[in-house]
Amino acid sequence: MTNIFAVILAAGQGTRMKSKLYKVLHPVCGKPMVEHVVDNIQSLNVSRIVTIVGHGAEKVKEQLGDKSEYVLQAEQLGTAHAVRQAEAILGSLEGTTLVVCGDTPLIRPETLESLFEHHQKQNAKATILTAIAENPTGYGRVIRDANGQVAQIVEQKDASPNQLLVKEINTGTYCFDNKALFEALKLVKNENAQSEYYLPDVIEILQQQGEIVSAFSCDNFDETLGVNDRVALSQAEEIMRARINEMHMRNGVTIINPLTTHISADAVIGRDTIIKPGVIIEGNTVIGEDCIIGPNSNIVSSRIGDRTTVQNSVVTNSIVGEDTSVGPFAHLRPDSELGNHVKIGNFVEVKKSTLGDNSKVSHLSYIGDAEVGSNVNIGCGSITVNYDGKNKHKTIIEDNVFVGCNSNLVAPVKLGAGSFIAAGSTITKEVPEDALAIARARQENKLDYAKKLNSK
Amino acid sequence: MTNIFAVILAAGQGTRMKSKLYKVLHPVCGKPMVEHVVDNIQSLNVSRIVTIVGHGAEKVKEQLGDKSEYVLQAEQLGTAHAVRQAEAILGSLEGTTLVVCGDTPLIRPETLESLFEHHQKQNAKATILTAIAENPTGYGRVIRDANGQVAQIVEQKDASPNQLLVKEINTGTYCFDNKALFEALKLVKNENAQSEYYLPDVIEILQQQGEIVSAFSCDNFDETLGVNDRVALSQAEEIMRARINEMHMRNGVTIINPLTTHISADAVIGRDTIIKPGVIIEGNTVIGEDCIIGPNSNIVSSRIGDRTTVQNSVVTNSIVGEDTSVGPFAHLRPDSELGNHVKIGNFVEVKKSTLGDNSKVSHLSYIGDAEVGSNVNIGCGSITVNYDGKNKHKTIIEDNVFVGCNSNLVAPVKLGAGSFIAAGSTITKEVPEDALAIARARQENKLDYAKKLNSK
Amino acid sequence: MTNIFAVILAAGQGTRMKSKLYKVLHPVCGKPMVEHVVDNIQSLNVSRIVTIVGHGAEKVKEQLGDKSEYVLQAEQLGTAHAVRQAEAILGSLEGTTLVVCGDTPLIRPETLESLFEHHQKQNAKATILTAIAENPTGYGRVIRDANGQVAQIVEQKDASPNQLLVKEINTGTYCFDNKALFEALKLVKNENAQSEYYLPDVIEILQQQGEIVSAFSCDNFDETLGVNDRVALSQAEEIMRARINEMHMRNGVTIINPLTTHISADAVIGRDTIIKPGVIIEGNTVIGEDCIIGPNSNIVSSRIGDRTTVQNSVVTNSIVGEDTSVGPFAHLRPDSELGNHVKIGNFVEVKKSTLGDNSKVSHLSYIGDAEVGSNVNIGCGSITVNYDGKNKHKTIIEDNVFVGCNSNLVAPVKLGAGSFIAAGSTITKEVPEDALAIARARQENKLDYAKKLNSK
Repeated sequence: MTNIFAVILAAGQGTRMKSKLYKVLHPVCGKPMVEHVVDNIQSLNVSRIVTIVGHGAEKVKEQLGDKSEYVLQAEQLGTAHAVRQAEAILGSLEGTTLVVCGDTPLIRPETLESLFEHHQKQNAKATILTAIAENPTGYGRVIRDANGQVAQIVEQKDASPNQLLVKEINTGTYCFDNKALFEALKLVKNENAQSEYYLPDVIEILQQQGEIVSAFSCDNFDETLGVNDRVALSQAEEIMRARINEMHMRNGVTIINPLTTHISADAVIGRDTIIKPGVIIEGNTVIGEDCIIGPNSNIVSSRIGDRTTVQNSVVTNSIVGEDTSVGPFAHLRPDSELGNHVKIGNFVEVKKSTLGDNSKVSHLSYIGDAEVGSNVNIGCGSITVNYDGKNKHKTIIEDNVFVGCNSNLVAPVKLGAGSFIAAGSTITKEVPEDALAIARARQENKLDYAKKLNSK
Repeated sequence: MTNIFAVILAAGQGTRMKSKLYKVLHPVCGKPMVEHVVDNIQSLNVSRIVTIVGHGAEKVKEQLGDKSEYVLQAEQLGTAHAVRQAEAILGSLEGTTLVVCGDTPLIRPETLESLFEHHQKQNAKATILTAIAENPTGYGRVIRDANGQVAQIVEQKDASPNQLLVKEINTGTYCFDNKALFEALKLVKNENAQSEYYLPDVIEILQQQGEIVSAFSCDNFDETLGVNDRVALSQAEEIMRARINEMHMRNGVTIINPLTTHISADAVIGRDTIIKPGVIIEGNTVIGEDCIIGPNSNIVSSRIGDRTTVQNSVVTNSIVGEDTSVGPFAHLRPDSELGNHVKIGNFVEVKKSTLGDNSKVSHLSYIGDAEVGSNVNIGCGSITVNYDGKNKHKTIIEDNVFVGCNSNLVAPVKLGAGSFIAAGSTITKEVPEDALAIARARQENKLDYAKKLNSK
Repeated sequence: MTNIFAVILAAGQGTRMKSKLYKVLHPVCGKPMVEHVVDNIQSLNVSRIVTIVGHGAEKVKEQLGDKSEYVLQAEQLGTAHAVRQAEAILGSLEGTTLVVCGDTPLIRPETLESLFEHHQKQNAKATILTAIAENPTGYGRVIRDANGQVAQIVEQKDASPNQLLVKEINTGTYCFDNKALFEALKLVKNENAQSEYYLPDVIEILQQQGEIVSAFSCDNFDETLGVNDRVALSQAEEIMRARINEMHMRNGVTIINPLTTHISADAVIGRDTIIKPGVIIEGNTVIGEDCIIGPNSNIVSSRIGDRTTVQNSVVTNSIVGEDTSVGPFAHLRPDSELGNHVKIGNFVEVKKSTLGDNSKVSHLSYIGDAEVGSNVNIGCGSITVNYDGKNKHKTIIEDNVFVGCNSNLVAPVKLGAGSFIAAGSTITKEVPEDALAIARARQENKLDYAKKLNSK
């Protein structure tokens, strides 16, 4: 088995992004570009990943954590200079090294694997990942020799008219014999307009040494997109969105409008679930089978059980059971946990609360810092008064309680099992099991008084 | 007049859909694929429609009801075998038979009519509906003879290099002389790898009998899309969505963003209505002229009067009058009926209730099981307390009533015409006409008490 | 310096729009088509703009106001006839005249400027703005002579087979020597099927006079789109939407899904702001840096400070401070003004009110006609009772007030600084500074009463 190493170039500022955020940290489908690159490489059998950091070094390290080793490129003196920073870690090892840019989040693991296999089979010292560009203007062209190996990489400005017609371009991703790479890097010079050390020069050096330099062409130009500004960022997002959506559709999920459906790379969705238009599913959300999600729901890092409906609602860091209905226009804030056959209706907010099976909060209510049992019915407009201006307090509602409309449950407070709260009551003291609690004024009808009011 | 018959192939399971739902029952723009096919055929002058059912036979029959006759194909032994199941019904009749797959929901009636007319004019025994495919890989190619008639249908795997270049493909939709069809079906053999009886073999048999086999090419490849997985399902949805939207735009409806606008095939929309982005209109909804719908409204099987606005709201099985405003963030549940010049404002739910002309429920209210008259003003936070834990009760609010904010109307209860409910009251008893009803505690100010609370 | 004049053709009814609204008044990205045209022309150094009005003359004038002068074309007798109506205003002046159709909102000022410069450089009497059409069917073809100048404009119906192959088409936008234009207009005849006077005839007349007629080809066919029906209207909207979105992305705004993001031409957005899917930004809205807008927010003519979040909300004619959070599901109605570090949570409506720094209205409340100080906490379900059935009244809440849940503040009323309102109170009288106000009934627990209710 050959050892595989990877060097990820992630030191650039990315001035065309016009951002305080370093380029490779801009997210695509919710995950920073460079993390897509690292995750894709990790799914290969790679022994060491070295990320070259520079601008925003600390932020990049913080994001990737121990998924990678890091080397600092203090000054940005070109891509060859960047790779050479990894010499202390990789320079002495036998194996094959992938070099990938941190701003190419779309290259699939399968493509990197094919690149590596091609490299092995060709017995090459270097293999370039290429792609066929409809419009190759601006890219380095890959000129092949009679054997199909690489004769030359020509930059746009140096290309002859015939070379300009070549549509096979250098994507900036490479596979190298590790030792040959670091030997050649020592020979790269910076005698050019920018005084930078360029990685493609390694290719020329290896060729002059008589080594085999090969090229592996990626089927899909889109995969190789490098993100240098926010227009490209939105294109990368669109391509990855389509790829994720297609994967779910092939697995048996119905997506009514893939153009308006955003699913994170890490979400899991069961068969026969229907995703209606305008849905955003973020983080490591898990959705069961036979659900109806949307339209226009935003679900973040949550778990949704089978046969559950989440319509026009926002759900964050929560757990929702089976056969449950949420929305339209409901908001489950973090640490909410709903049982099975629960109903959370319109204009209801739940925060840091549990609700047992078969409980219902059908309209215009706020349930915060509460433990709600099973078969509880919470009437319209009811509120857990969990905040006294200084501290948050807990409300406990036991099984089979009926809370009348527009009630205030002033926490800390407990409603005993089977108790009944009369509509319009402000409850400040514990209600015993099976008791009826009432706290409201008696109705008085003042005859003809409304008429008098109107005639004023 | 020639008799026209139709055979619809709807027996397949559709394993690539990865679904518990049978393939032809998957909806496109809200209507099952096979029902689109049947509805399109019905708009021709067809005497009998026979649907061949197999997997999910009962569900398909239930869906289509008496729009079709049915024959069961107990075992799926190929398309020719499927059509042959219709012999007992159609075998002895004189006429022309359309054979259409139940998974091709996009073929327009106009195209089927042109196919039929071409068939008649060519005096053919069989006519194939063909299309020009940009990428014909995988499709059966239609090879024409010198007279432009069909020489052969060649499957991908049997095609010569020259035949592979042909872009005219067999769409799987046919027109046959009925008797010739059933005679030829008897001769089809299953001597192939799958041991299936294939319908295209009928074409070869008729040709060998010296009959004319013709081909009619559909202008638009998209129309002939067959849906075999959920990726194709989403493409069919996209094509039909665009077609429906274009029809409404040509009729004088403004659609700001057709990519995010979903209108069912059966909806009707008046001129100069503006559909803002993110709108979903389902079922047989009828919307008047000069309305503004959206953004992000979801209207299901409802009727909306002229000059009405429905913004960021969900409306289901309801009737909304003219010059009325709904939303943003309102929810009209089934059996709601609003008059003219009504306002339903933000965070308001209406269920199974009527509201007369000029009445207003402007914010944060729930009106359920209520009859509300005209010129009624229901204050913010008011609730019809329609459920006592066991039964639902009715609230009656007569004309010109003013309901103060945060009131509870505990049903069954009636507010007489012109009455006035003081804010914060819980009303449990009938309020006479022109009376003022009040049910609240008197305010007490405890001086400096808040300061003491804070210093605790 | 040459004087530049402009004539805008805006007299047509636009029958294919099927609309009560006159064609040029249909908006694209929120602004009437003709106003886009006028605004684009105004950004050039134009001395006089004359708009030819006919159908809907008064409405067009009302829309454009003093951005233009107007001439009435009482009868629609063709484009040449229309331009000739400007003779009284422009006929005697020396200079260059742009003639632009009021239904071509996408032509960029840069293109008009290039057209004008080309016209000057070529020393032409007329210059046609042309474009290369993928499918030129229906358009007048521009036939160039050996010198690259215009030999002829041929209409579709008059074109030879060779001319039909020409893809350079007449966009209907022209640059003329002003005096030559009005002289030539006198010679245009209406001897054609429609008995109309056609502007392209001026080209022929000038050529016959031996004058130079030049053509300037616009890079982008899309720019020259003329809107004649609502399908074209939606295309124009799509093109302009993409153009505006790209401009913001190049400026450093992240737009997750440009296909579902609608930003008016006049909006300003700061760097590193993220626009989530489904957002609509209208009017002259100004959004700061580092904001998160959306998903699904609709912001109209408002100002949003830096680092503020507006999620699933509607904001109209309001001012929102810095580090503030709005939504999800909030509604800021006109004349709301929020300070910094404010929170407006779910199901909250604010209308014509100010809120000071650090104040919070977290859930299910209505704040209308109120002045709210700093560090105020308004509990869930609290309502400013601003309407008594006849008049609106004001609520004043001073700094550091705590309003308990489900309170009614019956306006006119004032809550003194540091006061505390007990949950469930209806406040009708002023609350002094630091006082606690309470207005609710005492809780009574009726033991086992709920059990009895249930056994009924």
